[in-house]
Amino acid sequence: MRSIICLISCKDKEGVISKITDFIQTNKGNIISLHQYVDRENGMFFMRIKWSVKTLKLSIDEIRLLFKNLLHHDPNSKINLFKNSDRPNMAIMCSKDKHCLMDILSRHKLSEFNIEIPLIISNHKSVESIAKLFNIPFYYFNLKENNKKDVEDSQIELMKKYNIDFISLARYMQILSPNFVSKFLNNIINIHHSFLPAFIGAKPYHAAFKRGVKIIGATTHYVTSELDAGPIITQSIIDISHEYGVEELVKKGRELEKSSLSKAIMLHSERRILVYNSKTIIFE
Amino acid sequence: MRSIICLISCKDKEGVISKITDFIQTNKGNIISLHQYVDRENGMFFMRIKWSVKTLKLSIDEIRLLFKNLLHHDPNSKINLFKNSDRPNMAIMCSKDKHCLMDILSRHKLSEFNIEIPLIISNHKSVESIAKLFNIPFYYFNLKENNKKDVEDSQIELMKKYNIDFISLARYMQILSPNFVSKFLNNIINIHHSFLPAFIGAKPYHAAFKRGVKIIGATTHYVTSELDAGPIITQSIIDISHEYGVEELVKKGRELEKSSLSKAIMLHSERRILVYNSKTIIFE
Amino acid sequence: MRSIICLISCKDKEGVISKITDFIQTNKGNIISLHQYVDRENGMFFMRIKWSVKTLKLSIDEIRLLFKNLLHHDPNSKINLFKNSDRPNMAIMCSKDKHCLMDILSRHKLSEFNIEIPLIISNHKSVESIAKLFNIPFYYFNLKENNKKDVEDSQIELMKKYNIDFISLARYMQILSPNFVSKFLNNIINIHHSFLPAFIGAKPYHAAFKRGVKIIGATTHYVTSELDAGPIITQSIIDISHEYGVEELVKKGRELEKSSLSKAIMLHSERRILVYNSKTIIFE
Amino acid sequence: MRSIICLISCKDKEGVISKITDFIQTNKGNIISLHQYVDRENGMFFMRIKWSVKTLKLSIDEIRLLFKNLLHHDPNSKINLFKNSDRPNMAIMCSKDKHCLMDILSRHKLSEFNIEIPLIISNHKSVESIAKLFNIPFYYFNLKENNKKDVEDSQIELMKKYNIDFISLARYMQILSPNFVSKFLNNIINIHHSFLPAFIGAKPYHAAFKRGVKIIGATTHYVTSELDAGPIITQSIIDISHEYGVEELVKKGRELEKSSLSKAIMLHSERRILVYNSKTIIFE
Repeated sequence: MRSIICLISCKDKEGVISKITDFIQTNKGNIISLHQYVDRENGMFFMRIKWSVKTLKLSIDEIRLLFKNLLHHDPNSKINLFKNSDRPNMAIMCSKDKHCLMDILSRHKLSEFNIEIPLIISNHKSVESIAKLFNIPFYYFNLKENNKKDVEDSQIELMKKYNIDFISLARYMQILSPNFVSKFLNNIINIHHSFLPAFIGAKPYHAAFKRGVKIIGATTHYVTSELDAGPIITQSIIDISHEYGVEELVKKGRELEKSSLSKAIMLHSERRILVYNSKTIIFE
Repeated sequence: MRSIICLISCKDKEGVISKITDFIQTNKGNIISLHQYVDRENGMFFMRIKWSVKTLKLSIDEIRLLFKNLLHHDPNSKINLFKNSDRPNMAIMCSKDKHCLMDILSRHKLSEFNIEIPLIISNHKSVESIAKLFNIPFYYFNLKENNKKDVEDSQIELMKKYNIDFISLARYMQILSPNFVSKFLNNIINIHHSFLPAFIGAKPYHAAFKRGVKIIGATTHYVTSELDAGPIITQSIIDISHEYGVEELVKKGRELEKSSLSKAIMLHSERRILVYNSKTIIFE
Repeated sequence: MRSIICLISCKDKEGVISKITDFIQTNKGNIISLHQYVDRENGMFFMRIKWSVKTLKLSIDEIRLLFKNLLHHDPNSKINLFKNSDRPNMAIMCSKDKHCLMDILSRHKLSEFNIEIPLIISNHKSVESIAKLFNIPFYYFNLKENNKKDVEDSQIELMKKYNIDFISLARYMQILSPNFVSKFLNNIINIHHSFLPAFIGAKPYHAAFKRGVKIIGATTHYVTSELDAGPIITQSIIDISHEYGVEELVKKGRELEKSSLSKAIMLHSERRILVYNSKTIIFE
Repeated sequence: MRSIICLISCKDKEGVISKITDFIQTNKGNIISLHQYVDRENGMFFMRIKWSVKTLKLSIDEIRLLFKNLLHHDPNSKINLFKNSDRPNMAIMCSKDKHCLMDILSRHKLSEFNIEIPLIISNHKSVESIAKLFNIPFYYFNLKENNKKDVEDSQIELMKKYNIDFISLARYMQILSPNFVSKFLNNIINIHHSFLPAFIGAKPYHAAFKRGVKIIGATTHYVTSELDAGPIITQSIIDISHEYGVEELVKKGRELEKSSLSKAIMLHSERRILVYNSKTIIFE
């Protein structure tokens, strides 16, 4: 049995569910899951539907064309189709903090994700030992004041070479240029160590300590050209007390950061996320 | 605009979604939400679909008949249809602990539920003051060793008189007879003050204290003839520590009990719960 | 048996615990609980100690004087002593949203708090029905553009008349003047319907919806002259999804608001909170 | 600066806190943290106190003797003293599931624990690859129906050889004999994949699925001779829905299991746990 996942965004016209499910039934497909959401404010319809077929008579491209016909070639519509057997290629970029990287690679080693990880990029040489541990190609870039554009160009080349589908910033403490970001729109996942929109930017744990908050959080989001303002994927928090100094916040925060980022990678790789108007629709 | 909610359980044949959504589209209905679940183990399909119509051309009974036709009168199928404007009648039964009762009535007073509460039944006279506060008819039954059957018969009469759809046991410390239960199958919600199946029966906080657990919980479930074994609706817990004596567990537990019970009442009254094989399917 | 609670803040000199516990032992007291915290950054020591005595040979004032002697009359030290039998007087101020008010009064009715509630103040007449339900004196103030000072003066008079110890703003949608605030420093508890410092000011649920966050929160804090910037007491959150419109956020948020505010009232009334440098130390 | 941790259990006589803190002050120690708890039901007093000294004038043994004097050699008292610089030796025993093992070793690699891990023992050869990855000695035991005693004897020998202080059962699917357990009383931490006391024994996820619970949990506890009945250290849960089949429960449960076990290892290695009457007192 093979399975196919389809993500659809389109104007909310009546009948999309009925048309798509009718197509699947007619083609002897068996619906495994169907999630839909109507954004009434914007008059938009979103759906994730997964079905299995014994033999794939139509190619993905042919199905896409048929679905476009069903939606009358609405220019606002987006149709994304994936075979479950397609494992996306994810690059990891990280700086010196290794807990998120370690968590991703540990899960990858135990086959928890349905992805390939062809390379790890870092601006810190110390990360190489972890990459080696898990036998993944590692690229070090010595970022300086004046070489950011060159470095990013080389990184983009690498992404092409390895056929990268999406990127995880596993505590990558560099701001990517709008050019870089535009190459991977809604395909770069960042983990920010606060409950956004609170404590945007550098040193959120220090800011949280200073404000005397009673919770700390972590937020994963797609990177856009505006700092920490991209569509939010996941947010999680833990309770803290006055007893936590900055060092303890950093330590406790690591737990949130790594589990949040791995959760976001899971959701993205399973094609559960749609982006519309700087917000995410997530079908869990 | 009027809205209709339909709950369907049937054998998992291909095409149910397509047939139902097609019907709604043809009848100028607008789907507000659709949730479906396939139980592959048992080959069963479950759906909750809510749609709005400008004018209701067909009666609920006519729609039910049409849906039955669409499902080829499968004897395993169940179709429940409700108009959103139908407010179910809920009875409350409680003993001397008043926190759950108070929570339900407070929410009712602030119109948080879409229900009517025509009566409160208790085996403790002290509850009457709360019933009076919220101006709800109160019935006291003096339960003794030998009058249980008579009392239940009178209670069942009352339920008929007030046209009761479902019952909340808001810390009602009496075991209902199989006869009583059978009259309201899957329509009696109980709150048990532990995370079931742990600590079944009396004094769960004492048992939790003795075992030295680090969480305590509350479970809402539909009442069946087997004690604390009915289909679970909600479960919630809080962390505790060695510092909590039984008295503190009781106090903390109240928070869980009342919020869990009110949550279950909300889910039930919004027709979000299906029961199959002693388990619930809940479409939130 | 009577019990006494002492809250101490002072410079972190060695020996405070030993001196205080020695005093209690010498005076035949029995320590019920002792919590202490050292803020190393600021060199400050904080303690909450509760003990019981069979007969109170020394008055609270005499104990205070003795403790001041033990701390060598350090001008930075603060010593607050309370008899457990002293029930503080709490005023409630609220606007038209009634869920927090209802929650507080329901708990009060069931004797969950160790407080008195001598009066309720509102700028909305509709609140009076709830005050009457629970038989608590109600004062309505018709706030206009130009009468804020007069209204506050009258309110302060009322607080004096009723011997008010602290105030709960149970969704009071007015900003109190610095003059009012100064009269009840660290004794006015506000509930703000976001996880501060995110979404300060008006309409936080609308802002949360717009940003597309995946959690919403509630924060209780002591009111200071700066809006939503006072020392935080409690913060709590719930997970939300793209399916929640503003109306659902408001509805779900109510649960957080009322439980958070009641929790803060409990902590404050049990003398568990110390304030230092715009942050709280809470001994639970 | 060196720091010392002392765990004390004794009869609840007045004055213990004052005596111990007085000793520390007299010896120029600086109290870093003090947590105490009185079990009124059993008349027992428990304390964890941590202090720092510039130079350690007295040996740990000398301090122990002095403290015993302060407690008048009460035979019910227990005094455990540790230098912070003492890193305990932890052995890991596991079967074929690798997620807990991987989590522990990843954290160890990133120096999150203050422990040494001298060896890993397994009844599955497949675990060796993970042990090798992190360069830790690995011992395989081919457990059969009739060699359990011999295997355990060899394992106990290994524990002696490596000077093991405590053992983590990282999903070790074998029941240890009372003899083995008695050698490491309150020093063997097990992770059980349910919220105990529910679903004791084998296949708890299957049992949870069958019962239709809405939460699943994980429990860490010290191993005793009675199955899954030892003193509970941590418990954690996640919400689930009807959509989770057994496979998804197993997958989601892994997250709980590994974080719970690592949390328990952290608490144990930081000497935060006291055991009394089959329950734990944990000073976080």
